[in-house]
Amino acid sequence: MSASEIFSKDNSGARAGWSRKDLTGLQHLSREELVLLLDTAAAFKTVGTRHIKKVPALRGKTLVNFFVEPSTRTRVSFELAAERLSADVINMSASGSSLTKGETLKDTALNLQALHADVIVLRHSSAGAAQFLAERLDACVVNAGDGAHEHPTQALLDAFTIRERKGSIEGLHVAIVGDILFSRVARSDIFALTRLGAKVTLVGPSTLVPRDLERLGVHISHDLDSLLPDLDVINLLRIQHERQRKEYFPSLGEYTSFFGLTKARAARLKADCLVMHPGPINRGVEIDSDVADSSRSVILEQVTNGLAVRMAVLYLCNAARSGESA
Amino acid sequence: MSASEIFSKDNSGARAGWSRKDLTGLQHLSREELVLLLDTAAAFKTVGTRHIKKVPALRGKTLVNFFVEPSTRTRVSFELAAERLSADVINMSASGSSLTKGETLKDTALNLQALHADVIVLRHSSAGAAQFLAERLDACVVNAGDGAHEHPTQALLDAFTIRERKGSIEGLHVAIVGDILFSRVARSDIFALTRLGAKVTLVGPSTLVPRDLERLGVHISHDLDSLLPDLDVINLLRIQHERQRKEYFPSLGEYTSFFGLTKARAARLKADCLVMHPGPINRGVEIDSDVADSSRSVILEQVTNGLAVRMAVLYLCNAARSGESA
Amino acid sequence: MSASEIFSKDNSGARAGWSRKDLTGLQHLSREELVLLLDTAAAFKTVGTRHIKKVPALRGKTLVNFFVEPSTRTRVSFELAAERLSADVINMSASGSSLTKGETLKDTALNLQALHADVIVLRHSSAGAAQFLAERLDACVVNAGDGAHEHPTQALLDAFTIRERKGSIEGLHVAIVGDILFSRVARSDIFALTRLGAKVTLVGPSTLVPRDLERLGVHISHDLDSLLPDLDVINLLRIQHERQRKEYFPSLGEYTSFFGLTKARAARLKADCLVMHPGPINRGVEIDSDVADSSRSVILEQVTNGLAVRMAVLYLCNAARSGESA
Repeated sequence: MSASEIFSKDNSGARAGWSRKDLTGLQHLSREELVLLLDTAAAFKTVGTRHIKKVPALRGKTLVNFFVEPSTRTRVSFELAAERLSADVINMSASGSSLTKGETLKDTALNLQALHADVIVLRHSSAGAAQFLAERLDACVVNAGDGAHEHPTQALLDAFTIRERKGSIEGLHVAIVGDILFSRVARSDIFALTRLGAKVTLVGPSTLVPRDLERLGVHISHDLDSLLPDLDVINLLRIQHERQRKEYFPSLGEYTSFFGLTKARAARLKADCLVMHPGPINRGVEIDSDVADSSRSVILEQVTNGLAVRMAVLYLCNAARSGESA
Repeated sequence: MSASEIFSKDNSGARAGWSRKDLTGLQHLSREELVLLLDTAAAFKTVGTRHIKKVPALRGKTLVNFFVEPSTRTRVSFELAAERLSADVINMSASGSSLTKGETLKDTALNLQALHADVIVLRHSSAGAAQFLAERLDACVVNAGDGAHEHPTQALLDAFTIRERKGSIEGLHVAIVGDILFSRVARSDIFALTRLGAKVTLVGPSTLVPRDLERLGVHISHDLDSLLPDLDVINLLRIQHERQRKEYFPSLGEYTSFFGLTKARAARLKADCLVMHPGPINRGVEIDSDVADSSRSVILEQVTNGLAVRMAVLYLCNAARSGESA
Repeated sequence: MSASEIFSKDNSGARAGWSRKDLTGLQHLSREELVLLLDTAAAFKTVGTRHIKKVPALRGKTLVNFFVEPSTRTRVSFELAAERLSADVINMSASGSSLTKGETLKDTALNLQALHADVIVLRHSSAGAAQFLAERLDACVVNAGDGAHEHPTQALLDAFTIRERKGSIEGLHVAIVGDILFSRVARSDIFALTRLGAKVTLVGPSTLVPRDLERLGVHISHDLDSLLPDLDVINLLRIQHERQRKEYFPSLGEYTSFFGLTKARAARLKADCLVMHPGPINRGVEIDSDVADSSRSVILEQVTNGLAVRMAVLYLCNAARSGESA
C-alpha cells in the first residue's frame, strides 16, 4: 500500500487483505495479515517525521481509550496515534467508570456503543475481555492488553522494529528473557515471530519458563549464557517486582545474576544483535544501564514504532468496519 | 428548525424561542422551551448517524467539564457532544482542582471565566450550585446534576426517547419507580413530563416516596403491581446501594420483591410499554436482566439520545449567549 | 511583531531575538528576551477576545502536559493555550505514569520524545527537573514549576499584567509579600521585575524572608505597614497552610495580623496601587475578601493574561526549535 492511498480520506472500503474490524490477538492472524499490518505501519511511520503529523483517515470518528488497568504509556501511544489520524479521543479509567458501581463490562461497552464510539481500545485485567466485547459490539475493539493473554500491538511493534533493522524476520534467532509465564507480551511476540519465520527461545528460571510452553512452537532454555553468541535479537521482559511473588524467584539480585543483561553478557552478543525491552526498564535489574543506552539498544525505536503500528491497526480495523457497514 | 440551519456556522444570534444562556433546571421552563429543545435534539440526532459526525457550530469555543462529583458516564456524553459541535474540551475533576486547596466554588468559576471558558458543565454535590454560577458568570452554565435538585439533560433525554417512540407525551401514563426522595433525575423528569402533558405516578416504599411529593402535580403509589397494566412508560431509578442507608428499606432483596421489574411483572405490562432506566443498571435488583435486554427496553436508546439532547442544549445556550453579547 | 505575523501558519524559523527551544527559568533571560515575550503575549491576547479563538501556529504539533505534582489551574491554562494554537494535547499525571513503576524521569522523557512529543510542559517537585530534561531532549521543555526554584510563566503573567496596567515596569515599587523562602513564584518574579527595572521589596516574617535574599538585588522588609503608602504593586503570595510547618510562623491569625492585606491596610495604599495574587486565594488569610474583589485587584486579569503569556512561550520556543531543526 502506498502512502498516498493511506493519506487519502477515502477509507470507506476494507483494504485488500484485511477484513477484521477488531484486533484482539495475534494467535489467529495469518502471515499475510501480519505482513500487511507491518507494511501499513511502515507507510504511517513517515507521517511522524513530517512537519504536520496529521492525516484525515479517521476524521469525525471517536476512539475511546478504556483502561480498566492503568497504563499511561500504552494509553498515550494510542491517544497520539488516534490524534494523528484526526480522530476524537475520550479517555476512561476504571476508577471513574460505572464498573466501580457494579455495572458489567458488557453493559459499560454497550453504553459506549450507544454513544456511537467507533473504536474501543481496551486494557483489562481479564484474559478474553477484548474478545468478549469484539463479539458483542459493532465498534472496532483493539486489545491493549488483557490479563496474561495477549498484547498484540506491543508484539507488532517488536516485529516491526526487528524487520526494519534486519530486513527480514525469517530465520532470525530471537530470545525472550524473563517472566514468560505471566507475560501477554511474550505470548503475542511468540505468535507473531514464529509465524514470520523466526526461531524463538524463551529464557528464564524454570518457575517462570515452564517446559510445557514448548507447545507454542518455541525452544526453552534456563541458561542464558550459553545462548548469547547465537542470538540475533534479545528481548528482555520487565521484572514486575512490585507484583512478583517470591515463590517464583529468590530475589532481584539473584535474578540479575542469572538473567540480567549485564555488560559482561552484552559483550558476548553478536555485534549486530538487537537489544529490546517493552519498557519501562528497571535499570540494573533485567538490563544494565549502559547496555540500555548502547547503540545496540532499540528500546526507544520500539516506542516510536509503536505509534506507527497503532496507527496502522486503527486505520485497517476502521476501514474494515466501514466497509462492512457500507 | 431545519438541520441546515443548525449545521450552519452562524450561531451569532439567539434562536427564536430560546433566550437562556444557561440550563440549570427544567422547573421553570415553558412547554414551548421544552419542545424547542426536543426539536433541536431531533435535528442533531441525525448527525450521529453520518459518516462524519462533526458540525462546526461551536468551533473555537471552549467547554469545561467540571465534575466536582465523579460521573464518567455523563462526563463522556457531554465531552462527545461538545466534540461533535467542534468545541475544545477541558476536563476537571474535584480532586485535582483548587477546591481541595480551600478555594471557593465562585473563585474557581471566576478563574475558569478569566480563561475565557465559554461553557461550564457542572456536576456538584450541592443543590443550587449550577444556579449560583449561572448568576455570576458570563459563560454558559449547564447543570449536569446538583445534589438532589435537578439533572435536566437526563430528563430531556427521557422525554426525547418517549416522544420519539410514542409520537407524543400528552396523555401518557409514566411511572417513576424507586428512590424518588433523593433523586435529581426524578425531580427533573417530573417537571418535564408533567409540563408536556403526561400523567406521572411515583412508586416506591413510603420512606423513599413520601406523600407530600404530590405537591409537584404527580400521583403517589406504594403498590407497583396494581399499576402495571395501565402504564405506557415505566422508568426505573437506580438503587444506589453503595450509599443507601438502611433506615430507608430493609434489604435489596426486599426492595426487589416489591418494586423490582421482574419477568413476572414485565409480563403484566402493555405490549408497547417502554422500559427505561438512567443507568448504570443493577441487573437483578431494580430490573431483571432479561427485561433489561428485551425489545421493550429503550435503555441504550436513552444513552444515544442523551448525546443529541446535550448537543441541542450546548448549541442553544451558546447561541443565546453569543446573541446577548453581540 | 505584528498579529498577522503570529497568526500566519509559517513558524518555520526562529523569531528575531528568540533562539531558545526551552523556557526553564527567567534568571538568565535578557531584558530584550523578556520584552519580546511580553510583546508576543500582547499580540496573542487579542486572540482570546475573538469569536474564533484559534490560530494554526502549532497545528499538527503535540504538547504533553506532564504534571508530576498536581496543579489543575496551571495545567488547564497550558492546555487552553495549546488548543488555541491548534496543538494536540496529552495530559499525564504522576500517579498514572511509569515513574510510579520506578522509571527514571529521564527515561520517561525519552519515551515521550520517542513518541514525537514536540513540547513537554513539566511540573515537578525537584528544582532543576525542567533544565535536566531540556538538556537531554530535542523537544521544547517548558517549566511549569520545579520545586522551590522557578515558575517562569507565572512571573511573566505578573510582569505582563503590571506593564499592561502601568504602561511600564521601570521604576515601579513592587512588594512581594509572604512565604518567599519556598516560593518559586517569588524567585521568578524577582528575576523578571528587577531585570525590567522595578524596585522589588520582599516582605514577611524573618523566618520566611531571610536577610540573605538581598543578594538577588532586592530589598527586605519585615514591616508591611510602613511600606504601604509607597507601593505601586503589592503581590500577595499564597500561604500554603496545608503544608506550612509551624516552626515558620505561630498561626494563620498571627500571620494575617502582621502581613494580611486587610481593608485597613488597603486603605493606606495609593489609589492606583495594583493588588495581585497568583491564586488560589485564601480569603481572610493573606487577603481580605473585599480587597480581593475590589477595583484595585487584578487577580482575575492575571489569570486571563496567563493564557496569552503561555501562548507566547509555546509559540516562540516551538519556532526556535523548528528553525534549529530545519
